Amino acid sequence: MTELSDDSAWKLLEERNFGHLGLSHNDLPDIYPVNYAVDHRTILFRTAAGEKLHELTDNRHVVFEVDSETSNGTWSVIAKGHAKALTHDPELVERVADAFPPWIPIEPFVFVRITAESIRGRQFTRHVPVARRR
Amino acid sequence: MTELSDDSAWKLLEERNFGHLGLSHNDLPDIYPVNYAVDHRTILFRTAAGEKLHELTDNRHVVFEVDSETSNGTWSVIAKGHAKALTHDPELVERVADAFPPWIPIEPFVFVRITAESIRGRQFTRHVPVARRR
Repeated sequence: MTELSDDSAWKLLEERNFGHLGLSHNDLPDIYPVNYAVDHRTILFRTAAGEKLHELTDNRHVVFEVDSETSNGTWSVIAKGHAKALTHDPELVERVADAFPPWIPIEPFVFVRITAESIRGRQFTRHVPVARRR
Repeated sequence: MTELSDDSAWKLLEERNFGHLGLSHNDLPDIYPVNYAVDHRTILFRTAAGEKLHELTDNRHVVFEVDSETSNGTWSVIAKGHAKALTHDPELVERVADAFPPWIPIEPFVFVRITAESIRGRQFTRHVPVARRR
C-alpha cells in the first residue's frame, strides 16, 4: 500500500465522477452514491432543494470517498470536510456540466460544495505473494 | 432508476468483494473501503484485533455500500445493520477465503459480521435522453 501526495489524490479525483458521500445523522452512518465534479480543489455534488440529502449535508461534516480499479490494483481517495449548499450559479453549472450524466436528472437541483479539511489517497498494488511468510 | 428486490440485491453483493463501510463516531462520518464476503446473507469483512476499525465497528450500527458499473449503467446496494466481531472460526475462514485477495494481508485478523436490518438495491440505467422535457 502506497500513500499518495495530496496533489496525486486530487488528480485521481478529477479523473472520476462517481463517489460515495458519507454522512452521520443522530450518530447513525449513511452512504449515498453520487456523481460529483472537482472544482478548484473542492467537490461538488447535486441534491434537490428541500430533500433529505440537502438537509443532511448543508453545514455538516461529511466524508467523500472515490475509488477505482486500475490495471495493477485499486486506488482510494478519502476527503473529509464541511459541506455547504450553494446559491444558483449558471456559470458554475456550465463549467462542471460534463461531470453529471444527463441520464440521471435531478431537477431542480442545488450544488453542495465539500471543502476538504483533509485528503488521503492510497494505492493498493496487486501482486502475487512470493511466499507466505507466516 | 429501478428498485431491486432483496433477493436481487443479495445476488449482486455476492458477485463482488469490494465495498464501502460507513461508520459514525462522535457523530462524525467515516468511510472505509474494504474487501468483503457474503456468508448466508450477512456481510463479513476483516479487521486487525485491537485496531481502530475493530473498536469502531464491534456492536455498532454500520452501513455497507457496494456498487458496480455494468454495460448499461450502474447498480448500488446499501445494507444497514449491526456489526459484531467474531471469534476465530477456521471453517469460516476457509469457506470465504476466495473473497479476500492475498495481496492485501491483514494478519492476524478478526472477521466482523454485519447483520443487515435493511437492504436496498438500485439499478441506474444509462440512456440517451430522447428530448429534454423541461
